[in-house]
Amino acid sequence: MSVVDGTKSAGYDYGTEGVARSPVSLEELRELETAAGLGDEERRYLRLAGEVLADQAEAMVDAWRARMGAQEQLAKWFYGPDGKPDERYKAAIKPRFVRWVIDLCTRPFDQAWLDYQEEIGRRHAPDGKNATDEAQTPPLVPLRYVLAFSAIVVTSAREFLARKGHSTEDVERMHAAWTKAVMLTITLWARPYAKEGLW
Amino acid sequence: MSVVDGTKSAGYDYGTEGVARSPVSLEELRELETAAGLGDEERRYLRLAGEVLADQAEAMVDAWRARMGAQEQLAKWFYGPDGKPDERYKAAIKPRFVRWVIDLCTRPFDQAWLDYQEEIGRRHAPDGKNATDEAQTPPLVPLRYVLAFSAIVVTSAREFLARKGHSTEDVERMHAAWTKAVMLTITLWARPYAKEGLW
Repeated sequence: MSVVDGTKSAGYDYGTEGVARSPVSLEELRELETAAGLGDEERRYLRLAGEVLADQAEAMVDAWRARMGAQEQLAKWFYGPDGKPDERYKAAIKPRFVRWVIDLCTRPFDQAWLDYQEEIGRRHAPDGKNATDEAQTPPLVPLRYVLAFSAIVVTSAREFLARKGHSTEDVERMHAAWTKAVMLTITLWARPYAKEGLW
Repeated sequence: MSVVDGTKSAGYDYGTEGVARSPVSLEELRELETAAGLGDEERRYLRLAGEVLADQAEAMVDAWRARMGAQEQLAKWFYGPDGKPDERYKAAIKPRFVRWVIDLCTRPFDQAWLDYQEEIGRRHAPDGKNATDEAQTPPLVPLRYVLAFSAIVVTSAREFLARKGHSTEDVERMHAAWTKAVMLTITLWARPYAKEGLW
């Protein structure tokens, strides 16, 4: 088990009435899954990845955050009005970020999952940033940093997937499934940023 | 050498006055490269990937297109007013798509490269779709399919990178560099789709 479970953390509203219905339909979600190449085999390897990453998810988030913290252009969206990192805000987000890793591997891509991806997207965009945690950081994380940093989220996962003694082929398949699932997530997160009709 | 070189194809305006200046600055590009983890080592492995993929780029594009053609939700953005694939349009695009693979691995990420990524983004969005090739297909490829399909562009490259006898470690490093470079590209292509101030 991960040190941080995340399901009990403030603002983790997965599957609750606190999360609005996504404007994306389940049919559109299925089309996106197919576009990203997420089929039954990928779902199986994603579940295996969930087992492999369960006790590593916090370390992954720590590694990503260390990287973000070292780059002003990524870090500043989490600064308070005093121009310094808002540690309370970051601490509130962290268990949800850890939980995202686990949820991505283990949850079915159903209405609750779809709704929560929209909610996470909103919390990065002006629609919802700061609101959940009553923070006073800048009103968004610009889309370009969400997209560019996903390259790190995708590539850095490989070494974590390789740490539990699986064959190179299984690691490769888990990594491909992870990549596709991350890209599906990022696709959904991008929706609140897009001009009307262009998403 | 690839069968399709691409540099001589109609509409391939890389580095010419036909391409407008990107609204993204070179400084912003550098920040995005850092965010995506594209450093000197990645550039070296990207150049190696360029050698490995040079004579395979057309096969990669053929594989991607076969996949797109088999999915209505991906294919229909290339249909003409008669509801059938616009083969003339697709034929016009193909050598530029092949060239994109090579350019991504081999071109410096300078002003000309930056400008051309903006141009490619515009050609997927209502700003510029159909114009270059005087086609009458739908006015955009929705952002969600550009993003979701990038999962295929990223993951499918691995087997092509592994075909020239490089060590597993070198294949892995080339693949990570490819992933980061694709995500950087997609990030730039997304700009014309984003609401003012949110990109």
